[in-house]
Amino acid sequence: MKLLRYGPEGQEKPGILDGEGRIRDLSGHVSDIAGEALTPEALAELAELDVNGLPLVEGSPRLGACVGQVRKFVAIGLNYADHAAESGMAVPAEPVVFNKWTSCIVGPNDDVVLPPGSVKSDWEVELGVVIGKTARQVSEAEALDHVAGYCVVNDVSEREWQLERGNTWDKGKGFDTFGPIGPWLVTRDEVADVQNLTMWLDVDGKRYQNGSTKTMIFTVAELVAYCSRLMTLLPGDVITTGTPPGVGMGQKPPVFLKGGEVIRLGIEGLGEQSQTVRR
Amino acid sequence: MKLLRYGPEGQEKPGILDGEGRIRDLSGHVSDIAGEALTPEALAELAELDVNGLPLVEGSPRLGACVGQVRKFVAIGLNYADHAAESGMAVPAEPVVFNKWTSCIVGPNDDVVLPPGSVKSDWEVELGVVIGKTARQVSEAEALDHVAGYCVVNDVSEREWQLERGNTWDKGKGFDTFGPIGPWLVTRDEVADVQNLTMWLDVDGKRYQNGSTKTMIFTVAELVAYCSRLMTLLPGDVITTGTPPGVGMGQKPPVFLKGGEVIRLGIEGLGEQSQTVRR
Repeated sequence: MKLLRYGPEGQEKPGILDGEGRIRDLSGHVSDIAGEALTPEALAELAELDVNGLPLVEGSPRLGACVGQVRKFVAIGLNYADHAAESGMAVPAEPVVFNKWTSCIVGPNDDVVLPPGSVKSDWEVELGVVIGKTARQVSEAEALDHVAGYCVVNDVSEREWQLERGNTWDKGKGFDTFGPIGPWLVTRDEVADVQNLTMWLDVDGKRYQNGSTKTMIFTVAELVAYCSRLMTLLPGDVITTGTPPGVGMGQKPPVFLKGGEVIRLGIEGLGEQSQTVRR
Repeated sequence: MKLLRYGPEGQEKPGILDGEGRIRDLSGHVSDIAGEALTPEALAELAELDVNGLPLVEGSPRLGACVGQVRKFVAIGLNYADHAAESGMAVPAEPVVFNKWTSCIVGPNDDVVLPPGSVKSDWEVELGVVIGKTARQVSEAEALDHVAGYCVVNDVSEREWQLERGNTWDKGKGFDTFGPIGPWLVTRDEVADVQNLTMWLDVDGKRYQNGSTKTMIFTVAELVAYCSRLMTLLPGDVITTGTPPGVGMGQKPPVFLKGGEVIRLGIEGLGEQSQTVRR
Protein backbone atom coordinates (compact mmCIF):
# COMPACT_ATOMS: atom_id res chain seq x y z
CA MET A 1 0.00 0.00 0.00
CA LYS A 2 1.00 3.59 -0.58
CA LEU A 3 -0.50 5.59 2.25
CA LEU A 4 -0.53 9.35 2.29
CA ARG A 5 -2.08 12.44 3.81
CA TYR A 6 -3.65 15.15 1.65
CA GLY A 7 -5.23 18.54 2.16
CA PRO A 8 -4.29 21.90 3.69
CA GLU A 9 -1.60 22.06 6.37
CA GLY A 10 -2.96 20.92 9.72
CA GLN A 11 -6.14 19.55 8.14
CA GLU A 12 -4.72 16.58 6.27
CA LYS A 13 -6.94 13.58 5.60
CA PRO A 14 -5.75 10.00 5.19
CA GLY A 15 -5.55 8.60 1.68
CA ILE A 16 -4.24 5.72 -0.35
CA LEU A 17 -2.98 5.50 -3.93
CA ASP A 18 -4.98 3.25 -6.22
CA GLY A 19 -3.52 1.13 -9.03
CA GLU A 20 -3.65 4.08 -11.40
CA GLY A 21 -1.87 6.46 -9.02
CA ARG A 22 -5.00 8.33 -8.02
CA ILE A 23 -5.74 9.31 -4.42
CA ARG A 24 -8.58 7.50 -2.69
CA ASP A 25 -10.02 8.84 0.56
CA LEU A 26 -9.39 6.64 3.60
CA SER A 27 -11.11 8.82 6.16
CA GLY A 28 -14.03 6.44 6.43
CA HIS A 29 -11.60 3.85 7.80
CA VAL A 30 -8.84 5.62 9.75
CA SER A 31 -8.68 9.09 11.26
CA ASP A 32 -5.05 9.68 10.30
CA ILE A 33 -1.98 7.90 8.95
CA ALA A 34 -0.35 8.02 12.36
CA GLY A 35 0.36 6.13 15.56
CA GLU A 36 -1.94 3.18 16.12
CA ALA A 37 -3.14 3.21 12.50
CA LEU A 38 0.32 1.90 11.58
CA THR A 39 0.38 -1.28 13.68
CA PRO A 40 0.53 -4.60 11.83
CA GLU A 41 -3.09 -5.29 12.81
CA ALA A 42 -4.34 -1.93 11.59
CA LEU A 43 -2.42 -2.21 8.31
CA ALA A 44 -3.80 -5.72 7.78
CA GLU A 45 -7.32 -4.30 8.05
CA LEU A 46 -6.54 -1.59 5.49
CA ALA A 47 -5.10 -4.22 3.17
CA GLU A 48 -8.49 -5.93 3.11
CA LEU A 49 -10.21 -2.86 1.64
CA ASP A 50 -11.31 -2.70 -1.98
CA VAL A 51 -9.24 0.35 -2.93
CA ASN A 52 -11.19 1.00 -6.12
CA GLY A 53 -14.37 1.20 -4.08
CA LEU A 54 -13.07 4.06 -1.95
CA PRO A 55 -14.07 7.66 -2.76
CA LEU A 56 -11.86 9.16 -5.46
CA VAL A 57 -10.20 12.44 -4.51
CA GLU A 58 -10.58 14.96 -7.33
CA GLY A 59 -7.91 17.39 -8.42
CA SER A 60 -4.34 17.61 -7.16
CA PRO A 61 -4.49 18.44 -3.49
CA ARG A 62 -1.41 19.36 -1.50
CA LEU A 63 0.29 16.37 0.11
CA GLY A 64 1.17 16.54 3.78
CA ALA A 65 3.90 14.51 5.42
CA CYS A 66 2.89 10.87 4.87
CA VAL A 67 2.91 10.28 8.64
CA GLY A 68 1.08 12.51 11.09
CA GLN A 69 1.54 13.24 14.79
CA VAL A 70 5.14 12.03 14.72
CA ARG A 71 6.40 11.75 18.29
CA LYS A 72 10.07 11.12 17.53
CA PHE A 73 12.04 12.05 14.43
CA VAL A 74 15.31 10.20 14.94
CA ALA A 75 18.17 10.84 12.54
CA ILE A 76 21.31 8.91 11.74
CA GLY A 77 24.50 10.66 10.68
CA LEU A 78 27.38 9.58 8.48
CA ASN A 79 25.78 6.28 7.49
CA TYR A 80 27.37 6.10 4.04
CA ALA A 81 31.14 5.74 3.98
CA ASP A 82 31.54 8.06 0.97
CA HIS A 83 29.47 10.77 2.63
CA ALA A 84 31.56 10.56 5.81
CA ALA A 85 34.63 11.06 3.62
CA GLU A 86 33.19 14.09 1.80
CA SER A 87 32.25 15.60 5.19
CA GLY A 88 35.81 15.12 6.40
CA MET A 89 34.64 12.86 9.20
CA ALA A 90 35.67 9.36 10.21
CA VAL A 91 33.44 6.38 9.47
CA PRO A 92 31.68 5.87 12.80
CA ALA A 93 32.21 2.70 14.84
CA GLU A 94 28.54 2.71 15.77
CA PRO A 95 25.59 4.74 14.48
CA VAL A 96 25.59 8.51 15.03
CA VAL A 97 22.17 9.40 16.40
CA PHE A 98 20.71 12.88 16.53
CA ASN A 99 17.33 14.55 16.60
CA LYS A 100 15.19 16.53 14.20
CA TRP A 101 12.58 18.54 16.13
CA THR A 102 9.17 17.26 15.09
CA SER A 103 7.99 20.79 14.35
CA CYS A 104 10.28 20.76 11.30
CA ILE A 105 8.10 18.21 9.51
CA VAL A 106 6.33 19.35 6.32
CA GLY A 107 4.83 17.87 3.21
CA PRO A 108 7.07 16.50 0.43
CA ASN A 109 6.44 19.43 -1.91
CA ASP A 110 6.12 22.27 0.57
CA ASP A 111 8.59 25.13 0.45
CA VAL A 112 11.84 24.85 2.37
CA VAL A 113 12.38 28.14 4.19
CA LEU A 114 15.94 29.10 5.11
CA PRO A 115 16.39 30.48 8.62
CA PRO A 116 17.29 34.18 8.86
CA GLY A 117 20.91 34.79 7.98
CA SER A 118 21.59 31.22 6.85
CA VAL A 119 24.57 30.87 4.53
CA LYS A 120 25.16 27.11 4.80
CA SER A 121 21.84 25.38 4.22
CA ASP A 122 22.16 22.04 2.51
CA TRP A 123 20.20 19.01 1.28
CA GLU A 124 20.28 15.29 2.11
CA VAL A 125 18.13 12.65 0.39
CA GLU A 126 17.44 9.86 2.89
CA LEU A 127 15.46 6.71 3.36
CA GLY A 128 12.90 7.19 6.13
CA VAL A 129 11.79 4.24 8.23
CA VAL A 130 8.36 4.45 9.84
CA ILE A 131 7.83 2.38 12.98
CA GLY A 132 4.64 0.32 13.13
CA LYS A 133 5.06 -1.73 16.27
CA THR A 134 6.55 -0.62 19.57
CA ALA A 135 10.24 -1.56 19.66
CA ARG A 136 12.24 -1.79 22.87
CA GLN A 137 15.58 -3.63 22.96
CA VAL A 138 14.76 -5.60 19.83
CA SER A 139 17.32 -7.76 18.05
CA GLU A 140 18.50 -7.11 14.53
CA ALA A 141 16.73 -10.30 13.41
CA GLU A 142 13.33 -9.11 14.61
CA ALA A 143 13.84 -5.39 13.92
CA LEU A 144 12.06 -5.21 10.56
CA ASP A 145 8.92 -6.74 12.10
CA HIS A 146 8.59 -3.39 13.87
CA VAL A 147 8.67 -1.36 10.66
CA ALA A 148 5.40 -0.25 9.03
CA GLY A 149 7.08 1.00 5.88
CA TYR A 150 9.41 3.41 4.15
CA CYS A 151 9.37 6.90 2.69
CA VAL A 152 11.57 9.61 1.24
CA VAL A 153 12.98 12.23 3.64
CA ASN A 154 14.95 15.37 2.85
CA ASP A 155 17.12 15.87 5.94
CA VAL A 156 17.60 19.58 5.28
CA SER A 157 20.57 20.82 7.30
CA GLU A 158 22.08 24.17 8.20
CA ARG A 159 25.81 23.36 8.45
CA GLU A 160 26.86 26.44 10.40
CA TRP A 161 24.29 25.72 13.11
CA GLN A 162 25.01 22.00 12.92
CA LEU A 163 28.78 22.15 13.16
CA GLU A 164 29.97 25.56 14.30
CA ARG A 165 27.56 26.64 17.03
CA GLY A 166 28.20 24.26 19.91
CA ASN A 167 28.76 20.61 20.42
CA THR A 168 25.56 18.96 19.22
CA TRP A 169 24.16 18.69 15.73
CA ASP A 170 20.54 19.25 16.76
CA LYS A 171 20.70 23.03 16.35
CA GLY A 172 21.13 22.81 12.59
CA LYS A 173 18.70 20.02 11.81
CA GLY A 174 15.30 21.04 13.09
CA PHE A 175 14.40 24.46 11.69
CA ASP A 176 10.80 24.73 10.53
CA THR A 177 10.37 23.10 7.07
CA PHE A 178 13.67 21.17 7.41
CA GLY A 179 11.86 17.83 7.41
CA PRO A 180 9.90 17.08 4.21
CA ILE A 181 8.50 13.53 4.53
CA GLY A 182 6.70 11.66 1.75
CA PRO A 183 5.04 11.66 -0.78
CA TRP A 184 3.77 8.36 0.60
CA LEU A 185 4.47 5.69 3.11
CA VAL A 186 5.12 2.50 1.18
CA THR A 187 4.31 -0.47 3.38
CA ARG A 188 7.12 -2.91 4.04
CA ASP A 189 5.56 -5.74 2.05
CA GLU A 190 5.96 -3.68 -1.14
CA VAL A 191 9.70 -3.13 -0.72
CA ALA A 192 11.48 -6.30 -1.79
CA ASP A 193 14.95 -5.31 -0.58
CA VAL A 194 15.31 -2.12 1.41
CA GLN A 195 19.10 -2.41 1.10
CA ASN A 196 19.00 -2.15 -2.66
CA LEU A 197 17.16 1.06 -3.54
CA THR A 198 18.63 3.76 -5.75
CA MET A 199 18.25 7.33 -4.53
CA TRP A 200 18.98 10.68 -6.09
CA LEU A 201 18.71 14.44 -5.55
CA ASP A 202 18.82 17.33 -8.04
CA VAL A 203 19.09 21.07 -7.40
CA ASP A 204 17.85 23.16 -10.31
CA GLY A 205 18.14 20.16 -12.58
CA LYS A 206 21.73 19.32 -11.68
CA ARG A 207 22.21 15.85 -10.23
CA TYR A 208 24.13 16.15 -6.94
CA GLN A 209 23.30 12.91 -5.15
CA ASN A 210 23.18 9.54 -6.83
CA GLY A 211 23.41 6.64 -4.46
CA SER A 212 21.93 3.44 -3.22
CA THR A 213 20.91 2.08 0.15
CA LYS A 214 23.29 -0.73 -0.78
CA THR A 215 26.22 1.32 0.53
CA MET A 216 24.81 2.03 3.98
CA ILE A 217 27.31 1.35 6.76
CA PHE A 218 24.58 0.22 9.18
CA THR A 219 21.54 -1.48 7.66
CA VAL A 220 17.96 -0.53 8.44
CA ALA A 221 17.64 -3.59 10.68
CA GLU A 222 20.79 -2.65 12.56
CA LEU A 223 19.60 0.94 12.99
CA VAL A 224 16.16 -0.01 14.29
CA ALA A 225 17.72 -2.47 16.74
CA TYR A 226 20.31 0.09 17.83
CA CYS A 227 17.81 2.91 18.36
CA SER A 228 15.53 0.54 20.26
CA ARG A 229 18.31 0.19 22.84
CA LEU A 230 18.34 3.96 23.38
CA MET A 231 14.60 4.58 23.54
CA THR A 232 11.25 2.90 23.06
CA LEU A 233 10.29 3.38 19.43
CA LEU A 234 6.56 3.98 19.05
CA PRO A 235 4.20 3.52 16.10
CA GLY A 236 4.55 6.57 13.88
CA ASP A 237 8.09 7.39 14.97
CA VAL A 238 10.36 8.06 11.99
CA ILE A 239 14.05 7.17 11.68
CA THR A 240 15.87 8.85 8.82
CA THR A 241 18.87 6.79 7.96
CA GLY A 242 21.61 9.02 6.61
CA THR A 243 22.55 10.35 3.21
CA PRO A 244 24.80 9.17 0.38
CA PRO A 245 27.53 11.45 -1.06
CA GLY A 246 26.75 14.63 -2.93
CA VAL A 247 25.63 17.14 -0.31
CA GLY A 248 26.44 20.79 -0.90
CA MET A 249 29.04 20.87 1.86
CA GLY A 250 30.96 18.16 0.03
CA GLN A 251 31.29 20.06 -3.27
CA LYS A 252 34.57 21.71 -4.21
CA PRO A 253 33.99 24.53 -3.55
CA PRO A 254 30.95 23.96 -1.31
CA VAL A 255 27.53 24.86 -2.70
CA PHE A 256 24.80 26.03 -0.35
CA LEU A 257 21.18 27.03 -0.83
CA LYS A 258 20.55 30.73 -1.35
CA GLY A 259 16.82 30.76 -1.97
CA GLY A 260 14.94 30.32 -5.23
CA GLU A 261 16.29 26.85 -6.02
CA VAL A 262 14.09 23.86 -6.75
CA ILE A 263 15.17 20.63 -5.08
CA ARG A 264 13.93 17.33 -6.49
CA LEU A 265 14.69 14.02 -4.86
CA GLY A 266 13.48 10.47 -4.88
CA ILE A 267 14.06 6.89 -3.94
CA GLU A 268 13.31 3.87 -6.14
CA GLY A 269 9.75 2.72 -5.51
CA LEU A 270 9.08 5.35 -2.84
CA GLY A 271 8.21 8.33 -5.01
CA GLU A 272 9.59 11.83 -5.41
CA GLN A 273 9.63 15.16 -3.61
CA SER A 274 10.05 18.68 -4.98
CA GLN A 275 10.67 21.74 -2.84
CA THR A 276 11.17 25.38 -3.71
CA VAL A 277 13.68 27.05 -1.42
CA ARG A 278 12.60 30.37 0.06
CA ARG A 279 14.34 32.89 2.19
CA MET B 1 -1.98 27.77 40.00
CA LYS B 2 -0.32 24.45 40.56
CA LEU B 3 -1.50 22.18 37.76
CA LEU B 4 -0.86 18.47 37.70
CA ARG B 5 -1.85 15.15 36.22
CA TYR B 6 -2.82 12.20 38.41
CA GLY B 7 -3.77 8.57 37.93
CA PRO B 8 -2.28 5.46 36.36
CA GLU B 9 0.32 5.79 33.60
CA GLY B 10 -1.33 6.64 30.31
CA GLN B 11 -4.66 7.43 31.96
CA GLU B 12 -3.76 10.60 33.83
CA LYS B 13 -6.47 13.14 34.58
CA PRO B 14 -5.93 16.87 34.95
CA GLY B 15 -5.91 18.30 38.46
CA ILE B 16 -5.07 21.38 40.46
CA LEU B 17 -3.78 21.83 44.00
CA ASP B 18 -6.09 23.68 46.37
CA GLY B 19 -4.95 26.04 49.13
CA GLU B 20 -4.48 23.11 51.49
CA GLY B 21 -2.36 21.12 49.06
CA ARG B 22 -5.12 18.67 48.14
CA ILE B 23 -5.77 17.58 44.57
CA ARG B 24 -8.96 18.83 42.93
CA ASP B 25 -10.21 17.25 39.72
CA LEU B 26 -10.08 19.53 36.68
CA SER B 27 -11.44 17.05 34.16
CA GLY B 28 -14.77 18.87 33.96
CA HIS B 29 -12.89 21.84 32.54
CA VAL B 30 -9.91 20.60 30.50
CA SER B 31 -9.17 17.20 28.99
CA ASP B 32 -5.47 17.32 29.84
CA ILE B 33 -2.74 19.63 31.08
CA ALA B 34 -1.21 19.79 27.64
CA GLY B 35 -0.97 21.79 24.43
CA GLU B 36 -3.77 24.26 23.94
CA ALA B 37 -4.85 24.02 27.61
CA LEU B 38 -1.66 25.94 28.43
CA THR B 39 -2.24 29.06 26.34
CA PRO B 40 -2.65 32.37 28.20
CA GLU B 41 -6.36 32.38 27.32
CA ALA B 42 -6.93 28.84 28.56
CA LEU B 43 -4.99 29.48 31.77
CA ALA B 44 -6.99 32.68 32.36
CA GLU B 45 -10.18 30.64 32.21
CA LEU B 46 -8.86 28.12 34.72
CA ALA B 47 -7.86 30.97 37.00
CA GLU B 48 -11.50 32.03 37.17
CA LEU B 49 -12.59 28.72 38.69
CA ASP B 50 -13.52 28.36 42.34
CA VAL B 51 -10.90 25.72 43.21
CA ASN B 52 -12.60 24.74 46.46
CA GLY B 53 -15.75 23.96 44.53
CA LEU B 54 -14.00 21.38 42.33
CA PRO B 55 -14.31 17.66 43.17
CA LEU B 56 -11.79 16.60 45.80
CA VAL B 57 -9.57 13.68 44.76
CA GLU B 58 -9.41 11.14 47.59
CA GLY B 59 -6.30 9.22 48.60
CA SER B 60 -2.80 9.69 47.23
CA PRO B 61 -2.90 8.84 43.55
CA ARG B 62 0.23 8.49 41.48
CA LEU B 63 1.30 11.73 39.83
CA GLY B 64 2.08 11.72 36.13
CA ALA B 65 4.35 14.21 34.43
CA CYS B 66 2.71 17.60 35.01
CA VAL B 67 2.51 18.19 31.24
CA GLY B 68 1.06 15.65 28.85
CA GLN B 69 1.55 15.02 25.14
CA VAL B 70 4.86 16.86 25.10
CA ARG B 71 5.93 17.35 21.51
CA LYS B 72 9.44 18.65 22.15
CA PHE B 73 11.63 18.10 25.19
CA VAL B 74 14.49 20.52 24.59
CA ALA B 75 17.48 20.42 26.90
CA ILE B 76 20.24 22.90 27.62
CA GLY B 77 23.73 21.76 28.57
CA LEU B 78 26.42 23.37 30.70
CA ASN B 79 24.28 26.31 31.75
CA TYR B 80 25.89 26.80 35.15
CA ALA B 81 29.52 27.84 35.10
CA ASP B 82 30.46 25.64 38.07
CA HIS B 83 28.86 22.60 36.47
CA ALA B 84 30.78 23.16 33.25
CA ALA B 85 33.96 23.25 35.33
CA GLU B 86 33.15 19.99 37.19
CA SER B 87 32.40 18.35 33.81
CA GLY B 88 35.78 19.47 32.50
CA MET B 89 34.14 21.48 29.73
CA ALA B 90 34.48 25.12 28.72
CA VAL B 91 31.75 27.63 29.54
CA PRO B 92 29.84 27.79 26.26
CA ALA B 93 29.71 30.99 24.22
CA GLU B 94 26.08 30.29 23.39
CA PRO B 95 23.59 27.77 24.76
CA VAL B 96 24.29 24.07 24.20
CA VAL B 97 21.03 22.56 22.93
CA PHE B 98 20.24 18.87 22.83
CA ASN B 99 17.22 16.61 22.87
CA LYS B 100 15.56 14.28 25.30
CA TRP B 101 13.31 11.80 23.45
CA THR B 102 9.75 12.46 24.60
CA SER B 103 9.25 8.76 25.37
CA CYS B 104 11.60 9.24 28.35
CA ILE B 105 9.04 11.34 30.22
CA VAL B 106 7.61 9.89 33.44
CA GLY B 107 5.95 11.10 36.60
CA PRO B 108 7.96 12.85 39.31
CA ASN B 109 7.96 9.88 41.66
CA ASP B 110 8.09 7.01 39.17
CA ASP B 111 11.05 4.65 39.23
CA VAL B 112 14.14 5.52 37.21
CA VAL B 113 15.21 2.38 35.35
CA LEU B 114 18.87 2.08 34.34
CA PRO B 115 19.46 0.80 30.81
CA PRO B 116 21.02 -2.68 30.53
CA GLY B 117 24.71 -2.61 31.32
CA SER B 118 24.75 1.02 32.44
CA VAL B 119 27.68 1.94 34.67
CA LYS B 120 27.58 5.74 34.40
CA SER B 121 24.00 6.84 35.07
CA ASP B 122 23.75 10.18 36.78
CA TRP B 123 21.30 12.79 38.07
CA GLU B 124 20.69 16.47 37.26
CA VAL B 125 18.16 18.68 39.03
CA GLU B 126 16.89 21.28 36.57
CA LEU B 127 14.35 24.01 36.16
CA GLY B 128 11.82 23.06 33.49
CA VAL B 129 10.14 25.76 31.42
CA VAL B 130 6.76 24.91 29.92
CA ILE B 131 5.77 26.83 26.80
CA GLY B 132 2.25 28.28 26.75
CA LYS B 133 2.21 30.37 23.61
CA THR B 134 3.77 29.53 20.25
CA ALA B 135 7.20 31.14 20.05
CA ARG B 136 9.04 31.72 16.78
CA GLN B 137 11.99 34.12 16.61
CA VAL B 138 10.92 35.94 19.78
CA SER B 139 13.08 38.53 21.47
CA GLU B 140 14.45 38.13 24.96
CA ALA B 141 12.17 40.94 26.13
CA GLU B 142 9.03 39.14 25.04
CA ALA B 143 10.22 35.57 25.70
CA LEU B 144 8.60 35.09 29.11
CA ASP B 145 5.19 36.01 27.68
CA HIS B 146 5.42 32.65 25.90
CA VAL B 147 5.97 30.69 29.10
CA ALA B 148 3.02 28.99 30.84
CA GLY B 149 4.98 28.08 33.92
CA TYR B 150 7.77 26.14 35.56
CA CYS B 151 8.42 22.71 37.01
CA VAL B 152 11.12 20.44 38.39
CA VAL B 153 12.91 18.13 35.95
CA ASN B 154 15.45 15.41 36.67
CA ASP B 155 17.60 15.32 33.53
CA VAL B 156 18.75 11.75 34.15
CA SER B 157 21.84 11.07 32.04
CA GLU B 158 23.91 8.05 31.09
CA ARG B 159 27.40 9.53 30.74
CA GLU B 160 28.95 6.70 28.74
CA TRP B 161 26.21 6.92 26.11
CA GLN B 162 26.25 10.72 26.29
CA LEU B 163 29.98 11.25 25.94
CA GLU B 164 31.74 8.11 24.75
CA ARG B 165 29.48 6.60 22.09
CA GLY B 166 29.58 9.06 19.20
CA ASN B 167 29.46 12.76 18.72
CA THR B 168 26.06 13.78 19.98
CA TRP B 169 24.72 13.81 23.52
CA ASP B 170 21.23 12.58 22.60
CA LYS B 171 22.09 8.90 22.99
CA GLY B 172 22.60 9.20 26.72
CA LYS B 173 19.73 11.49 27.59
CA GLY B 174 16.52 9.87 26.42
CA PHE B 175 16.32 6.35 27.81
CA ASP B 176 12.87 5.42 29.09
CA THR B 177 12.24 6.96 32.56
CA PHE B 178 15.12 9.46 32.14
CA GLY B 179 12.72 12.42 32.19
CA PRO B 180 10.74 12.79 35.44
CA ILE B 181 8.73 16.03 35.19
CA GLY B 182 6.68 17.54 38.01
CA PRO B 183 5.13 17.24 40.58
CA TRP B 184 3.25 20.24 39.28
CA LEU B 185 3.38 22.99 36.75
CA VAL B 186 3.48 26.27 38.66
CA THR B 187 2.07 29.02 36.49
CA ARG B 188 4.37 31.92 35.76
CA ASP B 189 2.35 34.43 37.82
CA GLU B 190 3.22 32.48 40.98
CA VAL B 191 7.00 32.63 40.45
CA ALA B 192 8.19 36.07 41.51
CA ASP B 193 11.74 35.75 40.17
CA VAL B 194 12.62 32.67 38.16
CA GLN B 195 16.31 33.66 38.35
CA ASN B 196 16.38 33.38 42.12
CA LEU B 197 15.18 29.89 43.05
CA THR B 198 17.18 27.52 45.20
CA MET B 199 17.42 23.93 43.97
CA TRP B 200 18.80 20.76 45.50
CA LEU B 201 19.20 17.04 44.97
CA ASP B 202 19.93 14.22 47.44
CA VAL B 203 20.86 10.59 46.77
CA ASP B 204 20.09 8.31 49.71
CA GLY B 205 19.89 11.32 51.98
CA LYS B 206 23.24 12.83 50.97
CA ARG B 207 23.05 16.30 49.52
CA TYR B 208 24.89 16.37 46.18
CA GLN B 209 23.42 19.38 44.43
CA ASN B 210 22.75 22.67 46.12
CA GLY B 211 22.37 25.54 43.75
CA SER B 212 20.28 28.43 42.57
CA THR B 213 18.93 29.57 39.25
CA LYS B 214 20.77 32.78 40.11
CA THR B 215 24.00 31.30 38.69
CA MET B 216 22.65 30.32 35.29
CA ILE B 217 24.90 31.46 32.44
CA PHE B 218 21.93 32.06 30.11
CA THR B 219 18.67 33.18 31.73
CA VAL B 220 15.31 31.58 31.06
CA ALA B 221 14.36 34.52 28.84
CA GLU B 222 17.59 34.17 26.85
CA LEU B 223 17.06 30.42 26.44
CA VAL B 224 13.47 30.71 25.25
CA ALA B 225 14.49 33.40 22.76
CA TYR B 226 17.48 31.36 21.59
CA CYS B 227 15.52 28.13 21.12
CA SER B 228 12.78 30.02 19.29
CA ARG B 229 15.38 30.88 16.65
CA LEU B 230 16.07 27.18 16.09
CA MET B 231 12.50 25.89 16.03
CA THR B 232 8.94 26.93 16.60
CA LEU B 233 8.18 26.29 20.27
CA LEU B 234 4.64 25.01 20.76
CA PRO B 235 2.31 25.03 23.78
CA GLY B 236 3.28 22.12 25.98
CA ASP B 237 6.89 21.96 24.79
CA VAL B 238 9.33 21.73 27.69
CA ILE B 239 12.79 23.28 27.90
CA THR B 240 14.96 21.97 30.71
CA THR B 241 17.56 24.56 31.48
CA GLY B 242 20.70 22.86 32.73
CA THR B 243 21.97 21.75 36.10
CA PRO B 244 24.06 23.33 38.86
CA PRO B 245 27.18 21.58 40.22
CA GLY B 246 27.07 18.31 42.10
CA VAL B 247 26.34 15.64 39.52
CA GLY B 248 27.83 12.20 40.07
CA MET B 249 30.31 12.58 37.22
CA GLY B 250 31.76 15.62 39.01
CA GLN B 251 32.53 13.83 42.30
CA LYS B 252 36.09 12.82 43.13
CA PRO B 253 36.01 9.93 42.48
CA PRO B 254 32.85 9.92 40.33
CA VAL B 255 29.69 8.42 41.83
CA PHE B 256 27.16 6.75 39.55
CA LEU B 257 23.79 5.10 40.12
CA LYS B 258 23.87 1.35 40.66
CA GLY B 259 20.22 0.63 41.36
CA GLY B 260 18.41 0.74 44.70
CA GLU B 261 19.12 4.40 45.47
CA VAL B 262 16.43 6.94 46.27
CA ILE B 263 16.87 10.30 44.57
CA ARG B 264 15.08 13.30 46.02
CA LEU B 265 15.16 16.70 44.40
CA GLY B 266 13.32 19.97 44.46
CA ILE B 267 13.21 23.61 43.51
CA GLU B 268 12.00 26.42 45.74
CA GLY B 269 8.26 26.93 45.21
CA LEU B 270 8.01 24.19 42.55
CA GLY B 271 7.75 21.10 44.77
CA GLU B 272 9.77 17.92 45.10
CA GLN B 273 10.36 14.65 43.28
CA SER B 274 11.46 11.28 44.63
CA GLN B 275 12.57 8.37 42.45
CA THR B 276 13.75 4.89 43.31
CA VAL B 277 16.46 3.71 40.93
CA ARG B 278 15.97 0.25 39.48
CA ARG B 279 18.09 -1.94 37.29
